[in-house]
Amino acid sequence: MQVPSPSAREAASMYGTAVAVFLVILVAALQGSTPPESPFPYRIPLDPEGTLELSWNVSYAQETVHFQLLVRELKAGVLFGMSDRGELENADLVVLWTNGDSAYFGDAWSDQKGQIHLDAQQDYQLLQAQRTPQGLTLLFRRPFSTCDPRDYLIEDGTVHLVYGILEQPFSSLEAINTSGLRTGLQRVQLLKPNISRPALPADVRTMEVRAPDVLIPGQETTYWCYMTELPAGFPRHHIVMYEPIVTKGNEALVHHMEVFQCAAGFESFPHFSGPCDSKMKPERLNYCRHVLAAWALGAKAFYYPEEAGLAFGGAGSSRFLRLEVHYHNPLKIQGRRDSSGIRLYYTATLRRFDAGIMELGLVYTPVMAIPPGEAAFVLTGYCTDKCTQLALPPSGIHIFASQLHTHLTGRKVVTVLARDGRERAIVNRDNHYSPHFQEIRMLKEVVSVHPGDVLITSCTYNTEDRTLATVGGFGILEEMCVNYVHYYPQTQLELCKSAVDAGFLQKYFHLVNRFNSEEVCTCPQTSVPEQFASVPWNSFSRDVLQALYGFAPLAMHCNKSSAVRFQGEWDLQPLPEIVSQLEVPAPRCPASQRLSPVGPTVVNIGGGQG
Amino acid sequence: MQVPSPSAREAASMYGTAVAVFLVILVAALQGSTPPESPFPYRIPLDPEGTLELSWNVSYAQETVHFQLLVRELKAGVLFGMSDRGELENADLVVLWTNGDSAYFGDAWSDQKGQIHLDAQQDYQLLQAQRTPQGLTLLFRRPFSTCDPRDYLIEDGTVHLVYGILEQPFSSLEAINTSGLRTGLQRVQLLKPNISRPALPADVRTMEVRAPDVLIPGQETTYWCYMTELPAGFPRHHIVMYEPIVTKGNEALVHHMEVFQCAAGFESFPHFSGPCDSKMKPERLNYCRHVLAAWALGAKAFYYPEEAGLAFGGAGSSRFLRLEVHYHNPLKIQGRRDSSGIRLYYTATLRRFDAGIMELGLVYTPVMAIPPGEAAFVLTGYCTDKCTQLALPPSGIHIFASQLHTHLTGRKVVTVLARDGRERAIVNRDNHYSPHFQEIRMLKEVVSVHPGDVLITSCTYNTEDRTLATVGGFGILEEMCVNYVHYYPQTQLELCKSAVDAGFLQKYFHLVNRFNSEEVCTCPQTSVPEQFASVPWNSFSRDVLQALYGFAPLAMHCNKSSAVRFQGEWDLQPLPEIVSQLEVPAPRCPASQRLSPVGPTVVNIGGGQG
Repeated sequence: MQVPSPSAREAASMYGTAVAVFLVILVAALQGSTPPESPFPYRIPLDPEGTLELSWNVSYAQETVHFQLLVRELKAGVLFGMSDRGELENADLVVLWTNGDSAYFGDAWSDQKGQIHLDAQQDYQLLQAQRTPQGLTLLFRRPFSTCDPRDYLIEDGTVHLVYGILEQPFSSLEAINTSGLRTGLQRVQLLKPNISRPALPADVRTMEVRAPDVLIPGQETTYWCYMTELPAGFPRHHIVMYEPIVTKGNEALVHHMEVFQCAAGFESFPHFSGPCDSKMKPERLNYCRHVLAAWALGAKAFYYPEEAGLAFGGAGSSRFLRLEVHYHNPLKIQGRRDSSGIRLYYTATLRRFDAGIMELGLVYTPVMAIPPGEAAFVLTGYCTDKCTQLALPPSGIHIFASQLHTHLTGRKVVTVLARDGRERAIVNRDNHYSPHFQEIRMLKEVVSVHPGDVLITSCTYNTEDRTLATVGGFGILEEMCVNYVHYYPQTQLELCKSAVDAGFLQKYFHLVNRFNSEEVCTCPQTSVPEQFASVPWNSFSRDVLQALYGFAPLAMHCNKSSAVRFQGEWDLQPLPEIVSQLEVPAPRCPASQRLSPVGPTVVNIGGGQG
Repeated sequence: MQVPSPSAREAASMYGTAVAVFLVILVAALQGSTPPESPFPYRIPLDPEGTLELSWNVSYAQETVHFQLLVRELKAGVLFGMSDRGELENADLVVLWTNGDSAYFGDAWSDQKGQIHLDAQQDYQLLQAQRTPQGLTLLFRRPFSTCDPRDYLIEDGTVHLVYGILEQPFSSLEAINTSGLRTGLQRVQLLKPNISRPALPADVRTMEVRAPDVLIPGQETTYWCYMTELPAGFPRHHIVMYEPIVTKGNEALVHHMEVFQCAAGFESFPHFSGPCDSKMKPERLNYCRHVLAAWALGAKAFYYPEEAGLAFGGAGSSRFLRLEVHYHNPLKIQGRRDSSGIRLYYTATLRRFDAGIMELGLVYTPVMAIPPGEAAFVLTGYCTDKCTQLALPPSGIHIFASQLHTHLTGRKVVTVLARDGRERAIVNRDNHYSPHFQEIRMLKEVVSVHPGDVLITSCTYNTEDRTLATVGGFGILEEMCVNYVHYYPQTQLELCKSAVDAGFLQKYFHLVNRFNSEEVCTCPQTSVPEQFASVPWNSFSRDVLQALYGFAPLAMHCNKSSAVRFQGEWDLQPLPEIVSQLEVPAPRCPASQRLSPVGPTVVNIGGGQG
């Protein structure tokens, strides 16, 4: 709220006046893109105070996103954009700025030092700038891909939005450096799938799972746990939809929420409402891990496909539910109260199919490890043809949603479907995956998996800040590579994952020992994590580990539950051979770029003397 | 010369008439690019018959090439363009075509099946189409980079130009497939360096080294050898320039020429004029290998820098010279006579510095091998800091030209200069290197190498058509990775090359043996080529070989001549560590693309009724 110098304050105020006078500053035709009924179905706050609010829609036909940015308290300008992982350097930006006389809107980029430059190609197209009672709204659009190498390619999966507040005028765009600004990032799935909402059944009922009247702690991160239960004798139902309930005013604080069902084995669970890491939290709550619903910032309602629902209630399942709310409060706001939660829509008229959840990727085992100091090391887990042949029904299963999961070093995740050695479809891909933003995502298109198909899940990790190997495991400093796929009809197959054969890993330790003339302890009583900890990491031990993972046979987990395997031989399984990979489609360069201006748009014509 | 059907012939003839009537069809302003004095300094025939002739110039300021294509006998159209290695599939093309009524000029591309499509972005800009007595000339320009992913990026080094003749009208561009046309390729260095020619000394004299009246054999490939000699008592001179002499009419047949000096040790050499592979060729001619001059198609005169010259004549050097002319005669034309050769410009007033030639890259040894079935396997040779420290003068040496060399599987070659672990400059790079086009190239900028610098030469090989490993060596089916750099002042260092340490390679054979449970013979009496021949090639043995080459210590050759080493320990030398690589500059997307038409240009307005 501070304006740093009198002259700057004056200029900013002049600017504000000028904007007020020219209510509609610039209106351009939408060029054939009639806005849909609800023009901006998606909306999120960008900053923790909610002064910047982004709404948007997606046109897959035009491969374009329309953005509406609401700036509640405009100072001397604002910048907004996208970058690989939310950094303000090497970002693709739009900047609204003033030099004190005039205001400009331009497509820009920041270099690796955060200095801003005008883009040679102006791909963000300003359509409207308008003063409303709430603030200044900027309406602009941007093609998914621009073929400008300075620009961010908008893809499926997570997009790291960045913003910055200009508190004073700048003589030129080049005078701005993002390091001197108040900036931040917000993660969101920008390209929401364009799927039609199945009709809700006539007998649909709702149930709200909310933690009543939580006093949000004045700390950056809180996971709040709240226990509740289904009515006694609640029979088997199908959840067909769920949606978030976010307490008004807390939109920028409620980061994500999940509803878990507790394990069926226990008679009862204690009541609790408090931080999940509290010492007061009963141990037994750790047995409430079966996901019923999950929501994250920016997500809308989650619909099950018309022919399937998620079973809950009835015999053989627990009545007890745990709600987990992640409050993200970087400004450490005190005294805020919240009653957010999730509203379940369910029906007693069971649908044709039960929906199920299957785990793909890597087994939680230390034999899969990432060397330290790696910028992008890839580990891959397989669900082999042999397992799908045995476990899937002849008509196959249909994956309609997916939740990707790694621990802290995960940077990308992808699952590919292969048939007869050829990659056929992407099940889900996130090239900008963040472990801090794990939402269940509806797939753009349902992917059908048939007996004999192979599912290949690859995770890319960054261990540049670590000095020891990162091994697979449950710990937060260990790693995972998992894709929880939501599918129907439910099968017995709960887990289809792999790891490298342990014997081949021992050959690797021998070999590294031989090459480096150093002692890698390979004695049987030494654990694999200890062996990895004693590897002298260099280009050879790293490259050979990677070669091993790309060559050695697999230990397969083709399991009915985490403990019960399907019958068969699952050790020393051959690595699936892929003879042809999916072609990466060449980005479509929009013809509209030629119609765009070559320089910034003057927004505030005739201002400055106001 | 055949027109396939009467209606097509008719249409083609109508088209020819129409072109003749509209002499100047389309003239566009050159938009600030005033043509230089000699507008097109470079010229080559594209096809063996010379019916297509390309002239061009390069503007480094505008990063643009202006092309003038002369079509001597226009039929129904022509296509011209560039592709990775001269294939007509996945090529970046301009097409002049007619549908019988109108003629069009457009920027197009061919897909992997050779089918032609119009480019979304028109980056070849037609400036003029003109009928002259010689034929139709098309003047068009193209930026080096266009940021259109369908377009070829024009870089330093070899460019594979492709062409095709349209013998009949096509209803549309999409109806054309390159597989049905008469097509071909021509390799050329498109981006000739823009260096000023040093003035020739007043006392410059010339000497022509030509094979008189050769009857060019009626076969595709002939290397012609011709022996000549300097006058008796010819004293020491400096060659300061040389240029090709190509017999008129044979421009499309003379592919490259080299003048070699024979070894000083022999009293005399026999006379000879005949194919180099003739059984009649005297054995002793194999001792004539010291390059004095080299020219290849498309190259112009070669100038030494003002302060240096290449010594020849005088005591201690042979009087005998061997001229080698490569005739490329794919149409197997009979009875053509030729007296092409090279004209040397030399001076008795010795310049300040002798120029020298140094060999960088890999030692000719089988320890450096390429697995079979590789699309792009890289081998790297080093000239280490220890060697340059010892052998170079304190003021360093200046590299002004370079000739890259591999055998048949070479696809890319690059030499990088590193200092203090950081890459500093590219000495020479060819991303589209062809073993069939090895010319000495002047560097755009002289590269100075100081004591303690490292020179890293990497070659990329394609062995997809081989089933056994390709080992290093002299044989044409073995491989080399060499950069002959031309520099001054001459030093004693003639050869600065490396190979992997032989002991570490033996560890590799042991390891592969252990992993594959197969027999790789590692007995001392087995040769390395035999050991490589028995490796079971799979992803692991391949990846580990690559890892070995990137990790194991070096055997250095830091030699005064191929036999005499500089004093010091040259075995088990550490691999130079590179902590920062040269940044790849983002391609500049020309603003002019926005001014270009979005579709093809109609060339023949009002034609078709002619």
